[in-house]
Formats: sequence, C-alpha cells, structure tokens
Amino acid sequence: MQKERIILGIDPGTRIMGYGIILERGRSIELLLMDVLILTKIKEHSLKLKKIFESTLLLIENYKPDEMAIEAPFYGKNVQSMLKLGRAQGVAMAAALYRDVPIFEYSPRKIKQSVTGKGNASKEQLAAMLSNILNFSINPEHLDASDAVAVATCHYFQTQNTLKQQRNKGYSNWNTFISNNPDRIIT
Amino acid sequence: MQKERIILGIDPGTRIMGYGIILERGRSIELLLMDVLILTKIKEHSLKLKKIFESTLLLIENYKPDEMAIEAPFYGKNVQSMLKLGRAQGVAMAAALYRDVPIFEYSPRKIKQSVTGKGNASKEQLAAMLSNILNFSINPEHLDASDAVAVATCHYFQTQNTLKQQRNKGYSNWNTFISNNPDRIIT
Repeated sequence: MQKERIILGIDPGTRIMGYGIILERGRSIELLLMDVLILTKIKEHSLKLKKIFESTLLLIENYKPDEMAIEAPFYGKNVQSMLKLGRAQGVAMAAALYRDVPIFEYSPRKIKQSVTGKGNASKEQLAAMLSNILNFSINPEHLDASDAVAVATCHYFQTQNTLKQQRNKGYSNWNTFISNNPDRIIT
Repeated sequence: MQKERIILGIDPGTRIMGYGIILERGRSIELLLMDVLILTKIKEHSLKLKKIFESTLLLIENYKPDEMAIEAPFYGKNVQSMLKLGRAQGVAMAAALYRDVPIFEYSPRKIKQSVTGKGNASKEQLAAMLSNILNFSINPEHLDASDAVAVATCHYFQTQNTLKQQRNKGYSNWNTFISNNPDRIIT
C-alpha cells in the first residue's frame, strides 16, 4: 500500500485566512483544496476569532490532516498587529491541538527557500512555482490561499528530505524523528 | 430568586497563566477560585498552548461562567513576544468561543482604574484592593492569579454600572446592552 499523508497549511490573519490541503501519495503530491476565508465583513474581533476556530476545526474534521503547517513571522508592523495576528494563529492552532494534529511552523524565508530554492523569492515567484509543482492555475486574488499551500508544501519537502535521511540513519519512527529534529517543530 | 453571574478572568502568558473565578450573587461578589498554571516546565511551545486551551476548557466546563474577561495589553517588549502572547490569549479565547462564552477585554489601565480608582496603581495596590473587596489573603507568589481576578472584578464593576444605567435607560436585554456598548466587547 502506498503511503498517504494529508497536510493542512494555514495562513491566518484577522482580515483573511488562507488555507490549503495537500495529499502526499507515494512519491507524488497533489492539491486537494485551496481557498480563503474572508473576515472583513465580520466587525467584532471575537467573532472573527470564532469563525477562524470553527473553520479550522471543520477543515480538520472533514479532511483529517496528519499534520498542520503554519507560517511563523518573525517581524511585524507593530506590537498591536502582532498581538492580533498571534490571536488569529492561536485560535487556529487551538483547533489542531484539540484534535491532536501536530503543528509545525516555518519562517517565510524557509518557505520560499524550500519551495523555490530562493529565500528572497517574490510572492508571485512562489505562487508560480507552487502552480507548477501542484498543477493548478494561479488566481492573483487568492495569494493568501497560495501562501497556505506554500507552507504545507514546505512542510512536505522538509519532512520528505528528513524522512529520507532518517531511513539512511535508520530512524525507526516519528517520535525519533521529532526528538532528533526539535527545530522542525514549534519550540 | 437572586441574580447570579459567574465571571472567569484569565491572564494567559507562555510562562504562567493566571485565572480567577468570581460569583456575583445579588449585590455581593465572592471569589470562587484563583490559581496559576505553571508552564515553564513544558518545553515545546505547542504543548504550552495545548495546556492553556485544555485548562481553560476545563475551567469553563466545571464552572460554567457566563462571561470571560481578559486583559488586553496595548504595549509590549517586542513584536515576537507579542505574537507569543497573542497565541496564548488566542488558544484561551478559543476555548470560550467554542463554548459560546462571551469574551470582554479591558486595558491594564482600565482594570486598575475600575478596581482601585487609580489608573496608575501598582500591582501591590491592586492586589491589596482586591483582597479587601473579595476578602482573601494576598500571596505575593501569585500575582498572576490576582491579575486574573482583577480583570474579572473590573468586568463585574463595568457591567454592574452599565446594567444600572441600562435599567435607568430602560434597556431590555443583553443584546441591547452589547449594541449600545460596543466598546465593552472586543472589536
């Protein structure tokens, strides 16, 4: 039987949340879903957070991802916008934690590096490369969705490479992988 | 029958989460619980968030609060610490949103002003006033817990005053209160 793995990538924000789901089957990956959740029409901050939590929980219940990947920015316009971003990420992460889906985070630079080979690639270059890898057409209005697909694809590449190294090193299981790769998971 | 209301106050952080529960019965309030959750021994960031989410959910299931109050800081050391704080708040808020408990947030200054009458009161003055109002002894090791009690008490005072005004204005219900007081809830 071919190995299958489902990865949920999310890019949560308080205006738009992008999400994408990829399926690894054997040596190939395919895109199952990519979309955005528009939150601008919701006025109350707490209702936005509720919508993010419920939507992420629904995605997890419907697609049963094995892992969740999220972008971890290490910069920001100001402390207030970072607090809001942190809350949006927090509620999405809570849905994964609640359903015991492991969360992995990657910096924007790491994502670009992993997908395009260039840490300073533009959003458009990143989307074009993803479109090529996963065989879908780019919708310029949905760059938030492709950002979510990007982090999921980055996680696929990162763990794919590491799993190969593990087989060479004779690692036996996921727990060993985690204990040998603490930098790959949120610490 | 006397009106009863249970308010959960939380002060989430990635090192310690403080929580406190107060009960309003008729015209008096009493402290039901105050404690801290120590997170420093948990190394992984995602496991800390999981602990915060699960603990908040458990508090909600056990005490069935009518409302949750949280401190909303509008400052911070740096963007990275604000992202982490936002995530800690986000997972705690997710538990409340999941159980349909309305969330209210107050600035540190508003909390001090509401409880002590002075917006620039010290942590010790705030704890001393709370200790007096709620009749409990201060444990200097548990200032995070008393901060959580402080935000719950602030919410009690704020809504108490507003509910009185509402009765004078003839407001009929909570929805009317909310629509007339958008600044009291998270926007």
